[in-house]
Amino acid sequence: MNRTAGEAANLQLVLDMFAHVLNPMDSSAVDRFIAPGYIQHNQAAEPGREGLKKFLDMIREATPEAVHDVKRAFVDGDHVTVHYHVRRWPDDLGWAVMDIFRIEDGMIAEHWDVMQDVIEGGPNPASPF
Amino acid sequence: MNRTAGEAANLQLVLDMFAHVLNPMDSSAVDRFIAPGYIQHNQAAEPGREGLKKFLDMIREATPEAVHDVKRAFVDGDHVTVHYHVRRWPDDLGWAVMDIFRIEDGMIAEHWDVMQDVIEGGPNPASPF
Repeated sequence: MNRTAGEAANLQLVLDMFAHVLNPMDSSAVDRFIAPGYIQHNQAAEPGREGLKKFLDMIREATPEAVHDVKRAFVDGDHVTVHYHVRRWPDDLGWAVMDIFRIEDGMIAEHWDVMQDVIEGGPNPASPF
Repeated sequence: MNRTAGEAANLQLVLDMFAHVLNPMDSSAVDRFIAPGYIQHNQAAEPGREGLKKFLDMIREATPEAVHDVKRAFVDGDHVTVHYHVRRWPDDLGWAVMDIFRIEDGMIAEHWDVMQDVIEGGPNPASPF
């Protein structure tokens, strides 16, 4: 790895956000990691930082046992990629998710994601992870 | 950007693969970019390099007008992330896709991806890109 100190800090910020916001689905921790002008590209969430809090409250209410299991994460300058497995309940096949975050001034300023159902019995015996 | 020469080469390899393999859906160009021991994690494709060729032939036959429009791409060491928009025909809303590639010895050795339908009329007016 040839990461700069800035890149290492950007990656750590995102992993800390997973630990303190996404995994516990804790909307009260959002303001420590997410910039006031947060640009949300997720298609199911309402815009901005307040939309994210509402989304977290909604998923914690609906699926309190959900886990967000990070499989790999990368950083290139201001952008961090995370590939992870969401399981809503213990035997859930779940979703494969990739997120890209843009960091600005030490906060997460923008977010894109793609999510897909994990299937069983497809043509590829390899894990999606 | 603080990319090493090796990182720049890895990113360029993937972008060249998009230009010569994925965009033209050209299975005959696969062996120039994809390692013999290619590990495929896409859930819809058959395993390995031969499975990829079969998959490309299938999509070129089914959707000859398809475009793979790269929105952003990043590199961290041996791993490259690409976020792109697949449209199967001119007015297709299409799919949002993120790929992660692992490069080994100048070839693409492993691939993970996640894809999701682009929707209209959701709660977020922002583009998924």
